[in-house]
Amino acid sequence: MIRSVRALFFDVFGTVVDWRTSVAREAELILHPHGITADWIALADAWRAEYQPSMEQVRSGRRPFTKLDVLHRENLERILPRFGIGKHSGDILSELNLAWHRLDAWSDVVPGFTRLRAKFLLAPVSNGNIALMVDLARRNGIHWDAILGSDVARDFKPNPRAYLAACEALNLAPEQCMMVAAHTRDLAAASENGLRTAHVARPDEYGPGTGERGPTAPVDVAAGDMVALAEKLGA
Amino acid sequence: MIRSVRALFFDVFGTVVDWRTSVAREAELILHPHGITADWIALADAWRAEYQPSMEQVRSGRRPFTKLDVLHRENLERILPRFGIGKHSGDILSELNLAWHRLDAWSDVVPGFTRLRAKFLLAPVSNGNIALMVDLARRNGIHWDAILGSDVARDFKPNPRAYLAACEALNLAPEQCMMVAAHTRDLAAASENGLRTAHVARPDEYGPGTGERGPTAPVDVAAGDMVALAEKLGA
Repeated sequence: MIRSVRALFFDVFGTVVDWRTSVAREAELILHPHGITADWIALADAWRAEYQPSMEQVRSGRRPFTKLDVLHRENLERILPRFGIGKHSGDILSELNLAWHRLDAWSDVVPGFTRLRAKFLLAPVSNGNIALMVDLARRNGIHWDAILGSDVARDFKPNPRAYLAACEALNLAPEQCMMVAAHTRDLAAASENGLRTAHVARPDEYGPGTGERGPTAPVDVAAGDMVALAEKLGA
Repeated sequence: MIRSVRALFFDVFGTVVDWRTSVAREAELILHPHGITADWIALADAWRAEYQPSMEQVRSGRRPFTKLDVLHRENLERILPRFGIGKHSGDILSELNLAWHRLDAWSDVVPGFTRLRAKFLLAPVSNGNIALMVDLARRNGIHWDAILGSDVARDFKPNPRAYLAACEALNLAPEQCMMVAAHTRDLAAASENGLRTAHVARPDEYGPGTGERGPTAPVDVAAGDMVALAEKLGA
């Protein structure tokens, strides 16, 4: 079953990059020089908490497809007052919105991807937009074969189109593609659409011991990190 | 003017890869074992001659967007009888259609791109589809930041959307993007849409002395090859 897999599709936020501590760091770097103090981790969590609801408007058809950079900006303006952060210039908010372009990869990603790339095509299938994925790849030294995901599908995971458009872009059948994610919900949706699935554990995604230590539904492969995934896939 | 450029967009067929001798070679490799002989270069030229007319159906709105692999296959079936090549199994035609995924880059591309990549984002903005671009990049050792072009725009050059969708995907204004091509027509359309332009000469594209030795309309930069382009752009 696994032998027919030609491409690995990666969830990015949480699976490839540590968004939480990176966003907190960037928020402090950008806002502190303006005399602003806040619980930066709480700010990152609050910003992220708006992520699914904002995409749900698009997934449900109530709003036309809108790239994640735009949703992030709207979500930012929604949460800032809760942190006592008042009106600031658009330039500061634009800069802060780029925090999502400056996320650090988990340390196993580059060594794992180097091995995986020798055997498979690698592409992000993220809800993040192309510009955001390009900046994360440059920052972290990731070599994707193509950037797939929401901008190509014009829809967000876990809607079927998000997965199927990625398979079609590579001229592959769903069973030739494996979704790799730290989130069982993402993998379950990929599986329903015919893709293979691999769970990579990110137990500290929302802070120590908060993430999925393993899949909570059946998957084809489960691994502790990207190097272990390469090992299990014979790469 | 050039200092504001952040991304280079590349035409691929003719500009980055030598489609003509590559398609001729692949056609011979695939068909000769089946006892077929033909003027392979003439076959490559005839196949390519169907390229613009087939895209024109989409550009004019008479046909919904159709990826180039599909158009190539239709065009192949149209030209084969002219070469006395009768009905063959779909498997052979599918294999032959992949000739376009096995094109060799001109020899200056990899050294030129290595330098250009240190200063700019690099992406193909080709009428070829994503799967085709992925295979060409793997074959030739090209590291694109993203694969843009027809599959992202859902339209073909020289229609405006093909250029503007690429700029938007990188969150860049047209004047921050430079189209690089061996064909003045492509550059003129890019320029009309606000992009910067660079001409790279491929004088042997259709055989010795047949290609554009230089631009036939004003461009921002003209170079003899990709290494010379890197030099002129200070990369």
